[in-house]
Amino acid sequence: MKKSKPEDCRSGCPISHVLDILGDRWSFIIIRDMLLFGRHEFHEFMDAGEGISTNILTDRLKHLMKQGIVNLRLHPTNKKRKFYYLTQKGRDLMPVIHEMVCWAGTYIELNEIARKRIAAMKKDPQAFMKRIFQEADIWEKSELK
Amino acid sequence: MKKSKPEDCRSGCPISHVLDILGDRWSFIIIRDMLLFGRHEFHEFMDAGEGISTNILTDRLKHLMKQGIVNLRLHPTNKKRKFYYLTQKGRDLMPVIHEMVCWAGTYIELNEIARKRIAAMKKDPQAFMKRIFQEADIWEKSELK
Repeated sequence: MKKSKPEDCRSGCPISHVLDILGDRWSFIIIRDMLLFGRHEFHEFMDAGEGISTNILTDRLKHLMKQGIVNLRLHPTNKKRKFYYLTQKGRDLMPVIHEMVCWAGTYIELNEIARKRIAAMKKDPQAFMKRIFQEADIWEKSELK
Repeated sequence: MKKSKPEDCRSGCPISHVLDILGDRWSFIIIRDMLLFGRHEFHEFMDAGEGISTNILTDRLKHLMKQGIVNLRLHPTNKKRKFYYLTQKGRDLMPVIHEMVCWAGTYIELNEIARKRIAAMKKDPQAFMKRIFQEADIWEKSELK
């Protein structure tokens, strides 16, 4: 397990450390795409409708890989196809995202689809998490190398 | 209760909405200062050791007030003294911060003081939250207007 080192960060506070690693708009969006929407290729992140630019996406993926949050696999027959996926360190950010979603459910005016998804997640959070992690496990054990 | 409106945000996803509001390094640092360290005045945020600049702090406080996350009170006898404090909407970000701290406890190399604080928080999270919210209630009911 790769632990991030304090010398990467500016103060001794754990929250400050986390924000030094993830305190930008895009890191959590990319992590969300992998965790919740099964997006793993560069063009899939680009097409997610968030308006991320290619250079920022390239930079954020490198940063997340350097931090041990994201890993990379190549397609077995087409080495040009790169698949980015979350490590355990990355998947363990799910509770942070879960709490963000709960807060949004209370304090942000959302469309009906989003409201229904949040209601389902709140109704049975364990089943929701289990489904997410099952998908992540399938990915982890896939034959892509 | 002030709900943030979707037109403020760029996509329909709740996580994207949250990150449009809070997806920068400093918003969560300011919220942390109020929630966990009892800092409420401009100079206290400046002196927190994080290296925030005066113009960014001014901008972030305005932004958090506009979003209904932070409110402002003036000292009863010295109107130049401004006290910033979290609304209920702001305090309800505590679970997000709590999960960030738990993740940091597992994946970031922390100093001994931080490790002990996280261990205490994990041992009895309800007592930890209760203490935080009692302090916030005292602030809410104070005579500052």
